[in-house]
Formats: sequence, C-alpha cells, structure tokens
Amino acid sequence: MNINNKSKKINIKQKFSKFSKYWSPKVLAEMNDYQFKIARIKGEFIWHNHNETDEVFIVIEGTMKILLKGETIQLSKGDLYVVPKGIDHKPVAEKECKVMLVELKGTKNTGSEIHKLTAEDNQWI
Amino acid sequence: MNINNKSKKINIKQKFSKFSKYWSPKVLAEMNDYQFKIARIKGEFIWHNHNETDEVFIVIEGTMKILLKGETIQLSKGDLYVVPKGIDHKPVAEKECKVMLVELKGTKNTGSEIHKLTAEDNQWI
Repeated sequence: MNINNKSKKINIKQKFSKFSKYWSPKVLAEMNDYQFKIARIKGEFIWHNHNETDEVFIVIEGTMKILLKGETIQLSKGDLYVVPKGIDHKPVAEKECKVMLVELKGTKNTGSEIHKLTAEDNQWI
Repeated sequence: MNINNKSKKINIKQKFSKFSKYWSPKVLAEMNDYQFKIARIKGEFIWHNHNETDEVFIVIEGTMKILLKGETIQLSKGDLYVVPKGIDHKPVAEKECKVMLVELKGTKNTGSEIHKLTAEDNQWI
C-alpha cells in the first residue's frame, strides 16, 4: 500500500515520460491487492501465462498484438483485453506501444518463466 | 465470469455510444472478482463510501471532481485516482464526463446509501 500514490491523482500519459526501457512495467497505483502498471513495449515478448490472475491490457498509445494459442488479438489505442488466468499468451508490438496493465500485486511479467526479459516487480514510478 | 466478454477485445470509447443515462455504471469486463465499468456522469452525485473496496476512477473524456472531506481532486482526461476503501467521497461533473471505474464485483455506486441514484449493479454492456 503506497499512501502517497493512492492519495494523488496520476496522469497516465505523463508517467510514460519518466522511463524508456521496454518490457519493464512500472507501478502507478494500487487498488486493494491489485496494481495498475504501465509499460513501453516493442518487439516480441515471450510465451508465458499467469497461473494466479487474469491480466488486463489497455492500450494507451500505438498498436499491439496478443498472440494466443490459435488466435491473435489486435489491439489499438483505447482497447481493453483480459487475458484469462493460466492462458498462454505472447505480446508483440511492431512499433513502440504504450500499455497499461492491471493485475494482482506480485505478478511477474514473464509468469513462471525465467528469462532475460523478466523484470523486477513492484517498481513504482 | 463472462467468458464472451473476457475473450473479446473491448473498445472503451465505442461502448459509451450504447447508453446515455447518467450515473448508471455499465460493466465492460471482469478480472478475477473485479469489474471494469464505464459511466457517464453529470451534475452532483451523493456522498458515500465503499467499505469493502478501493475504487479507481480513470477519466476517459471531460473533467470531473471528486470531493473528499477537506479536499477536492480535479481530474481530466487520462487521469487516474484511487479512492481508498471507506473514504467518503462525492463525484461531481459540471459538464458531462465519461469515466471508467475499477472495483470489486458487487460494489454499489452509492455504497451503503440507498438513494434514487442507486443503480442496479452488474449491468453488462
């Protein structure tokens, strides 16, 4: 629980100006035991899943794809998509895309996979 | 759990075209036992609180205020604000404002208050 962040308004787009690294989600806010995070993404992520939580993607700027087994979801600015708990998925962005993620606190970006793209969680911005 | 809504992408702004009533939140999506809702708001809501959950406001279009006891939060498009669990608040919008709400499933818009503005919960759109 981060009282400072909880009691202030947060401008989502402005927060993106504070970091540049791809695939490195930053925490904006907490709601109970959930976190709102933002990430810059570009290129191909790895296949993974989150056994403990559904994961929400909201595209803030740009376009991206979420590859599922047997289906590809194309997302543009203003689109929201819920990846259900346990479902394998692979985010891809040809050009840089800015996304907001909502998920249970402690969720690792690569799920149970350990990879060079695995980011430290709970990085507040 | 609404599988149909969980497996489709949702364009947040387009969903606003499907209803016009003020202060009547519509459910877009579920994430575990939480719901993403959208609402059109205009005028003054009532003072209330949610004893069981933090509540997230994200302004999609327009401007609004959240009155707290002793403080007023001014929110514009792209701003996110977390009203902590149990905190009295009163949303106000001079002109129509479009917001997204994220909160525990079953949360009533007026909290424990019963009022003519109390909306039926779990109205999917």
